[in-house]
Amino acid sequence: MRMRQLAVIDLGSNTTRLIVMAYAPGEQYKLVDEIRERVRLAEGMGPGNVLRLPAVRRAVKTMEMFAAFCRAHGIRRVIPVATSAVRDATNRAALLAEVRARAGLSLRVLGTREEAHYATLGALNSMDLRDGYVVDLGGGSLQVAEVRGRRLVRSASLPLGTVRLTEAFVRSDPLDNGDAKALARYLREAFAALDWFKAGDGKQLVGLGGTIRNLAKIDRAERDYPLDLLHGYVLPAESVRGSAARLQRLPVARRAQIAGLKADRADVILAGALAVRALLEHSGFEELTICGHGVREGLFFEVFMQGRSRPLIPDVRRFSVLNLARQYHYEPKHAAHVAHLAVRVLEQLDPDASDDERALLWAAAQLHDIGMAVDYRNHHRHSEYLLLNGGLDGYTHREIALLALLARYHRGGTVDLAPFGRLLRRGDEARARRLAALLRLAEYLERGRHQVVRDVQVTRRGGALRLRLLTRGDASVELWDAGRNLELLEEAFGARVVLDG
Amino acid sequence: MRMRQLAVIDLGSNTTRLIVMAYAPGEQYKLVDEIRERVRLAEGMGPGNVLRLPAVRRAVKTMEMFAAFCRAHGIRRVIPVATSAVRDATNRAALLAEVRARAGLSLRVLGTREEAHYATLGALNSMDLRDGYVVDLGGGSLQVAEVRGRRLVRSASLPLGTVRLTEAFVRSDPLDNGDAKALARYLREAFAALDWFKAGDGKQLVGLGGTIRNLAKIDRAERDYPLDLLHGYVLPAESVRGSAARLQRLPVARRAQIAGLKADRADVILAGALAVRALLEHSGFEELTICGHGVREGLFFEVFMQGRSRPLIPDVRRFSVLNLARQYHYEPKHAAHVAHLAVRVLEQLDPDASDDERALLWAAAQLHDIGMAVDYRNHHRHSEYLLLNGGLDGYTHREIALLALLARYHRGGTVDLAPFGRLLRRGDEARARRLAALLRLAEYLERGRHQVVRDVQVTRRGGALRLRLLTRGDASVELWDAGRNLELLEEAFGARVVLDG
Repeated sequence: MRMRQLAVIDLGSNTTRLIVMAYAPGEQYKLVDEIRERVRLAEGMGPGNVLRLPAVRRAVKTMEMFAAFCRAHGIRRVIPVATSAVRDATNRAALLAEVRARAGLSLRVLGTREEAHYATLGALNSMDLRDGYVVDLGGGSLQVAEVRGRRLVRSASLPLGTVRLTEAFVRSDPLDNGDAKALARYLREAFAALDWFKAGDGKQLVGLGGTIRNLAKIDRAERDYPLDLLHGYVLPAESVRGSAARLQRLPVARRAQIAGLKADRADVILAGALAVRALLEHSGFEELTICGHGVREGLFFEVFMQGRSRPLIPDVRRFSVLNLARQYHYEPKHAAHVAHLAVRVLEQLDPDASDDERALLWAAAQLHDIGMAVDYRNHHRHSEYLLLNGGLDGYTHREIALLALLARYHRGGTVDLAPFGRLLRRGDEARARRLAALLRLAEYLERGRHQVVRDVQVTRRGGALRLRLLTRGDASVELWDAGRNLELLEEAFGARVVLDG
Repeated sequence: MRMRQLAVIDLGSNTTRLIVMAYAPGEQYKLVDEIRERVRLAEGMGPGNVLRLPAVRRAVKTMEMFAAFCRAHGIRRVIPVATSAVRDATNRAALLAEVRARAGLSLRVLGTREEAHYATLGALNSMDLRDGYVVDLGGGSLQVAEVRGRRLVRSASLPLGTVRLTEAFVRSDPLDNGDAKALARYLREAFAALDWFKAGDGKQLVGLGGTIRNLAKIDRAERDYPLDLLHGYVLPAESVRGSAARLQRLPVARRAQIAGLKADRADVILAGALAVRALLEHSGFEELTICGHGVREGLFFEVFMQGRSRPLIPDVRRFSVLNLARQYHYEPKHAAHVAHLAVRVLEQLDPDASDDERALLWAAAQLHDIGMAVDYRNHHRHSEYLLLNGGLDGYTHREIALLALLARYHRGGTVDLAPFGRLLRRGDEARARRLAALLRLAEYLERGRHQVVRDVQVTRRGGALRLRLLTRGDASVELWDAGRNLELLEEAFGARVVLDG
């Protein structure tokens, strides 16, 4: 597939980022480069909202660099945007002109509603989100957006960015009680206006932005978490309260001892943690799910989904599975047929299987062989690695762990859930074993990768399961290889299995 | 690159294997499928050398299966060979005719010299081997080949295959002292004839075949080894003696408790271990390096290197690095330029750097970005994973660990050798730090991947190192990104570093 390249530059109030996406419109995309620079444009803006000269200089220099980078890479399509700090600055015109003159970039200044729109788009196209809220905490502002049926229905922008709050309220180090109380009161009052921002049935809370991601990293480091993923990470309110209290006790200079904390956020993270704590208190959510995509990806998705009235990926999970599979050059026919056979047997052996189980089996069938891109030998283990590290959107971490297990055990071995222990639920051990057994059966029935076994009919006779194969052509390889790999199937379903060609 | 496919089928005396290689002649190759079946063709042959009917039936059935597999995959080029059991059988004609009639395969029966030739070719094209011996222990025979200057100079075939020895000598379980002594005497006498098979200066001993690999697996499992690699694994004679003693004490039924032992070898591995112990004793080698390639790969290489008078890859290490890099779609110009810049700075900063260090830096520069095939984020960690798992031929495990470390730390972070602790030598910590620092510098000087920094001139002034960049065009990105990533360089060379565009 011929891939195009697109860069998005986001001049934020704290950090400034460049991302480069390679993509085939509507079909496939992949992040291929990223540069992050702490410009801290909002530094010293104060209540008068004036960009300070040193901050402007840093911003212009970084924009020049990013523009040079895009030129060097031959990236012609560049989308440069600016958010809160520039939007609010009384002297923004001078900055915009200088960036245009020096870097050749015409910054698009996003309005608050546009910012919420793109942030929400980034989340909707990378998460399994229908109803709830997307909060995006930046250096300059906090955007709160409400989503119903995958549509943005309203949004608000609050002046609660981490740099801004820090400069206005964090005057002592460690923060003394008086300052802390003043900030808490200010936050409470700011949220009070958002009476529509409340937890409720079926609503999800999704969090974006560097500060929120960093709070999740701190939590993850404390919990000895089994996955190295942030996107989809569930951050408990309890942990935010704990981090806020801990950060408040420690002076900035001693925060380096906190595992997971990024050094260049050590100063502003306290105000950020207090803002997140306040928004959780106000809304009543007990947890917040981290999204790794935001405004930048939203801007990209608008281009990627061009031609659609709404730039929404119809089924994020399905898209993400196929996006990953294509990236590693899977064999679509083989994968589809393994899925077909595995689901066929599941439906007959266990008519009460849930849609979720069927969906997991389908996804595992698409992805079980991607590890062959690493090496044929041990490709089941490489598939597991790629599944855990390649970025699968729309799935919970528990589901990603289950998919990794199915891929890991699709050829042989005794299913061992220990590496993912805490992520899994009651019943997941039996579930993983049953689904892995079905995937393994289907894989061996597709050993020649030629769809020679068309269907399987399951009957029970006495204690035994009889699998009758409907074939076209010579299925001797399949019969033989499936026949010598029935152990897990017999164990998982507690019955002797007889294959019948 | 358009890839062809080729299958090699090897009807051995114990196991029978099919491998499928995808390749572009002389340029690139990759194992893409493998089936292993324990046919145990030599079973019951006895001193009369007659293939028994059940064994023949198993062999024919497996050959039918493999042929069907190749047809289903559309693999037209198939090289089917047979070794010791068929070669020696008085009734081989009947087997060959039946395999031809039923499976449509015309087995080529390799003579003992041919077998040694192909096994040696498999080793020479996947290891850094100039002088020494290649021993290949199969179910029927043991081939010993002498190599000088990468040429096979002589070989011998001894009737010491594991199945054959087991049937002739292992009559008690556990093996009693009388049988053990008789076998030991037989082995000693068999090796006595090979007066040219002796350890000596600069000679290496390389071991092939399933039994030898399995002895290495047992050793690896005991040592809590940091890498999951067998190819290139160094198996100490001490360990072979230990395994032999342990296997001799345990009856077959209780050998499953030995970690690393393949269940379907539990019976024949004892005789194999005793044979390997005897060959080490006779030759005087204190260790044996495992080669994962053998006769099958040798047959493949003959096709792969077609057009050359000798089917030898000129430089295995170089070829293997580029083979891996191409597999993950590296950027050759960027990689070559990173290598150039890193080596240029090394030569100026440390004129005494060894050729090995220069070579490591070159290889790491080719491979540092391969992890981008997994995901851009954390691609340094993915590069490390691919390096450790992708199969890098001709390098020692210590060198592979060093290369993995260089890739792992090419973007940032503090070099941590702990995961590879025992593999590394004195001085490797400082070495890894210095080379990683140079790779990192070169990578950032190539940040735009556009070869804008042509060269670097290093001068010392006072305590500081001044790096003057010779550029063509705008090197602002490079100056900036290299400039903010000098920490490791300053630490590794103990001097302040000044960049000068």
